[in-house]
Amino acid sequence: MPSSSKLAALILAAGNGKRMKSEKPKVLSEVLFKPMICWVRDWCKKAEIDEMCVVISPEGEQIRGLFDGTTHFAVQQERLGTGHAVMQAKEFLEAHRGGDVLVLNGDAPFIDDETIRGALRLHREQECDVTVVTAEVDDPTGYGRIVRNQKNVAAIVEEADADDAARAIREINSGSFWFKVDFLLEALPKLENDNVQGEYYLPDTVKVAVRDGRRVRAYCSPNRDIVLGANDRKGLLKLGEIARMRVLDTLMEQGVDIVCADGVLISPDAEIGPDTAIYPGVIIKGKTSIGKGCTITGGSLIDSSVIGDGTLINSSQIYSSRVGDGARIGPFTQLRPDCVVANGAKIGDFVELKNCHIGERTSVAHLSYIGDSDVGARCNFGCGVAVANYDGNRKYRTVIGDDAFVGCNNSLVAPVRIGDNAYTASGSTITEDVPDGALAIARARQVVKPGWAQKFRIKKR
Amino acid sequence: MPSSSKLAALILAAGNGKRMKSEKPKVLSEVLFKPMICWVRDWCKKAEIDEMCVVISPEGEQIRGLFDGTTHFAVQQERLGTGHAVMQAKEFLEAHRGGDVLVLNGDAPFIDDETIRGALRLHREQECDVTVVTAEVDDPTGYGRIVRNQKNVAAIVEEADADDAARAIREINSGSFWFKVDFLLEALPKLENDNVQGEYYLPDTVKVAVRDGRRVRAYCSPNRDIVLGANDRKGLLKLGEIARMRVLDTLMEQGVDIVCADGVLISPDAEIGPDTAIYPGVIIKGKTSIGKGCTITGGSLIDSSVIGDGTLINSSQIYSSRVGDGARIGPFTQLRPDCVVANGAKIGDFVELKNCHIGERTSVAHLSYIGDSDVGARCNFGCGVAVANYDGNRKYRTVIGDDAFVGCNNSLVAPVRIGDNAYTASGSTITEDVPDGALAIARARQVVKPGWAQKFRIKKR
Amino acid sequence: MPSSSKLAALILAAGNGKRMKSEKPKVLSEVLFKPMICWVRDWCKKAEIDEMCVVISPEGEQIRGLFDGTTHFAVQQERLGTGHAVMQAKEFLEAHRGGDVLVLNGDAPFIDDETIRGALRLHREQECDVTVVTAEVDDPTGYGRIVRNQKNVAAIVEEADADDAARAIREINSGSFWFKVDFLLEALPKLENDNVQGEYYLPDTVKVAVRDGRRVRAYCSPNRDIVLGANDRKGLLKLGEIARMRVLDTLMEQGVDIVCADGVLISPDAEIGPDTAIYPGVIIKGKTSIGKGCTITGGSLIDSSVIGDGTLINSSQIYSSRVGDGARIGPFTQLRPDCVVANGAKIGDFVELKNCHIGERTSVAHLSYIGDSDVGARCNFGCGVAVANYDGNRKYRTVIGDDAFVGCNNSLVAPVRIGDNAYTASGSTITEDVPDGALAIARARQVVKPGWAQKFRIKKR
Repeated sequence: MPSSSKLAALILAAGNGKRMKSEKPKVLSEVLFKPMICWVRDWCKKAEIDEMCVVISPEGEQIRGLFDGTTHFAVQQERLGTGHAVMQAKEFLEAHRGGDVLVLNGDAPFIDDETIRGALRLHREQECDVTVVTAEVDDPTGYGRIVRNQKNVAAIVEEADADDAARAIREINSGSFWFKVDFLLEALPKLENDNVQGEYYLPDTVKVAVRDGRRVRAYCSPNRDIVLGANDRKGLLKLGEIARMRVLDTLMEQGVDIVCADGVLISPDAEIGPDTAIYPGVIIKGKTSIGKGCTITGGSLIDSSVIGDGTLINSSQIYSSRVGDGARIGPFTQLRPDCVVANGAKIGDFVELKNCHIGERTSVAHLSYIGDSDVGARCNFGCGVAVANYDGNRKYRTVIGDDAFVGCNNSLVAPVRIGDNAYTASGSTITEDVPDGALAIARARQVVKPGWAQKFRIKKR
Repeated sequence: MPSSSKLAALILAAGNGKRMKSEKPKVLSEVLFKPMICWVRDWCKKAEIDEMCVVISPEGEQIRGLFDGTTHFAVQQERLGTGHAVMQAKEFLEAHRGGDVLVLNGDAPFIDDETIRGALRLHREQECDVTVVTAEVDDPTGYGRIVRNQKNVAAIVEEADADDAARAIREINSGSFWFKVDFLLEALPKLENDNVQGEYYLPDTVKVAVRDGRRVRAYCSPNRDIVLGANDRKGLLKLGEIARMRVLDTLMEQGVDIVCADGVLISPDAEIGPDTAIYPGVIIKGKTSIGKGCTITGGSLIDSSVIGDGTLINSSQIYSSRVGDGARIGPFTQLRPDCVVANGAKIGDFVELKNCHIGERTSVAHLSYIGDSDVGARCNFGCGVAVANYDGNRKYRTVIGDDAFVGCNNSLVAPVRIGDNAYTASGSTITEDVPDGALAIARARQVVKPGWAQKFRIKKR
Repeated sequence: MPSSSKLAALILAAGNGKRMKSEKPKVLSEVLFKPMICWVRDWCKKAEIDEMCVVISPEGEQIRGLFDGTTHFAVQQERLGTGHAVMQAKEFLEAHRGGDVLVLNGDAPFIDDETIRGALRLHREQECDVTVVTAEVDDPTGYGRIVRNQKNVAAIVEEADADDAARAIREINSGSFWFKVDFLLEALPKLENDNVQGEYYLPDTVKVAVRDGRRVRAYCSPNRDIVLGANDRKGLLKLGEIARMRVLDTLMEQGVDIVCADGVLISPDAEIGPDTAIYPGVIIKGKTSIGKGCTITGGSLIDSSVIGDGTLINSSQIYSSRVGDGARIGPFTQLRPDCVVANGAKIGDFVELKNCHIGERTSVAHLSYIGDSDVGARCNFGCGVAVANYDGNRKYRTVIGDDAFVGCNNSLVAPVRIGDNAYTASGSTITEDVPDGALAIARARQVVKPGWAQKFRIKKR
């Protein structure tokens, strides 16, 4: 096959968010908390595209941050159509002469790697100059229809130009194409803007190809959703619904117990084990992994974290942390980034952990804040423990051994070390290290003033 | 036009909640947390109705509280039909002789100001005695059909009396009417109760008008929902669904990012800026205003509050308060009424604020209660701070300056003042003022008892 | 009627969870938090079935724990069909000779007591040997069709064997049967496994009965849902949707205000009074009872508890506890098992109660943990109170009288008694009893170090 070994893709991402009523570029609108262009980016990666070039608008500079250093960018200064957008990437295309390039829209998030590969296979096997990626849909209204001449594509007819016969065609243009780069470079200068909008349209490359006797074929994807994009917020909500139900369907096939799907939003990049129950209203973001036999109750938000097997996450938020097997978290608990909670630990209600390690079977049962700490195994924290890791200038690290018992309403003023088997008395402020097996106590003796209440009330009246 | 300048409306609100199985009058059943009659009241206000009269039942006294002092009330002692209900407002009608009166149902919340105005325009331009407000619906079953004789209304035919021809009519009576007051006063005594229920029906005024050769026209509203009412809880749930999706559609058109609509309930009186993301399960009540670029996560409940731009409200409840720009609230935080949180402030997890002012960039990061306080800018509160504003008799106000640092597990016994740049040590109970730049410390020295743990365990066995 | 007085039921529960991708037996898959077999068990109890026998697989031992001591069990060692499963219960059947037995599937949760009784009535009145429980459905695809010969059942034709005529039949086999026990014992040995799967099928008993000239009738239930079961997680989700909407419909008929149904999951065993408002995302499990005029906001999870009238449960979790009338709980509060909260009490934000009694009108307003305590009426707890009921070895009980005032950030070291009308000062650790009307104070005096802040900052740089 006359193609370079490297696969290239050109992502069109210069649209603005005008109809979204957004200050952000359109491709940054999110579906399941993931910008649309990141869906496209990830599908390309999964299809083993080697090099990408993204065409952005002058207002789209922030898009660069979503791609790694190998990605190329081209800026489309004026909005003169998809054909014009591709022209801006001329340098990228020149570098791929002799090969093939996939052109796709940054706001059509449901393209998939199977479709990309399938279309490429057809494109190469049949030595096409252009391969249009298409789908057959129930309602083609508004889309460009694929007019076939046996195996060849004869034309893409836009809605406005369609006669009744064309209008009846249900195979439509998804907006993605595989091109021979050499052909594309040859065709781009031939595009014309003699239309109402005065724009250069990429599908017109098909017109050029047909006229010049080039081979144009269509790859009809079994995935109809590849054609879907969003122009406004309602469209975005619809894409979100499709995306979330697809993720839930996949998870159910893998044995996840979706108790009720209402308000459940799970990242397409998350993995969840069988027999784990997901309650309504659970949100799971990013590359989160959850084991089997867990229970995640409503209102839980888990982001980029790893949860073991048989663990309960009860209406809690967990960010960039690891929780072991058989742990119990919540209700109403927050694990801020960089926490590790070992197997069998209990982090109870109204507890915040931040950047700390909690050992096996340790219990922080209620109303505590543990920050910047290393806590051993089998410890018990009373209610209301605060690790005062910040003195207004710096943050310090606290170390607590195994089997320690920290009393109620204690403040641990970092840096401080509590030894193995050590105890601290209720109400103590611990400012110095407590040796292994010792008791530390720091509180005033109780004084009782009999009859005080009556006097107090009289005085107050 | 032969009409007084003042616009009058008569709202029928004497129905009971029997089929709702409610102890409350039917019109107090809520749609999107707003009693149905308040929807009607607010549409009338928006349509610039000048004077309202509400017909209530003897059990409906609590309805009076929902209207301002200019509203009139009439009590219908017996439930003898809508015509009878209108008769109870005779005094109100007499006061509006020479003018027009809108009669509408207190349990049809989706009437709208455009419809009210449009019907009035037609009513006056065509000098009607009665203008029936109608809508054309797909399924007219159960509603009174509008039989037209060219432009005139010839009859309203109830379901029970309809022949096949009438049954096929899809234009129906919404239950709202504009009347010339003089005609209405003349027609009411002519109503008859010779029907199965023995009741006087308001639509029979059309029969009277037609018989007497008066002009009866229909104003067909483009808003079909005006005919909708609820007779039972299931109907109420349906109205709620329609109302909430209408609000969400409007917000999406304005650029609000509805991540997933499940469980999202937003007041029709709320305003939200573009690029603000609303997670599933968010509830926004009352005249709340939220800026642009905010994120409001699931489980948040915001009532009658003002939120600035770029602020995060993370699974928190906010009542009658103001939060500035770029603030971070939550997760699991409560702002009780009368709080002001300035720009850039952080109110972290498990914090309750009540009636206090928090200055710019101040951080109350965790597990604290700040009540009745004025806190300056750039302060830092350690974990577990309590402002003891109540001594069992009275509540006092606490004042904290700028750049103060309040230590962990502190109790501030009001009234007390912490100066600018002042520090308080962890575990202190602060009972006296702390001057600017000073450190206050109130705690016992730490004592360590080596080997205590082993003895304790032996003793306990 | 020639039948024993005791009613027997045989529940087939030997299926595995393979298509559920579950490690649990299939009948333990939950619908509305209740294992499918428990739905069947409860319907049998409601239909006053006297004795049950459950056929389990060797992996299904845990099912035994869901039934009381009167239930019999049989183990099906190999999966050789429903007929084979029934054969395993031969002993149970022998014990019921002369009577009738209901055979039903443990994974068809929507059978109901009316259907069970109705089918039995027909079975006995018409002296049937077999009574097939059937339903007429819109889409019979996949189910066994009931071929009738006047009143008699001529055959049950499975999908695979159905000709066009049979395929058109919409009356289908639900999988439940009433048998004369004597007939069933006679028929079981006659079942053959000459089918593709090599299994013994229970519906083939009808073939046997017809061949032997026995009387087979069908009882067509008005409840079409009796035929529904789940084979995979998607099917389970659908059953869950049906179940939850049925519960909500029933509650709405009883006057419960379902503000929005999204994410609301209410146990079929729960009772809720009229005018109680349920917000989206509320979960109510087990035999919970909630009074009238309550408000339960989103994110609340109430399990096996009793709530009085006019009480607010605001985004809180309540387990196995009782809350009185006019109480206010939450937001973000947890009542762990065995709490009693009396009328008019307020349990505010970030409070955990465990195994304690809170008296009338007592207020635990914020950030406190009260465990193993008896608290009187009209007490006031400051913010940050911890009852240190656990000393690392044992848990102790704390007693607080009426009208006591416990100061902020107090630790009460159990066992300790706070008297009626007693006060404790803010920041105190209470280790000894406080007599009635006394003030207890246990804290250090405040010391102020002027100018400390500046020195501290210089030192830190």
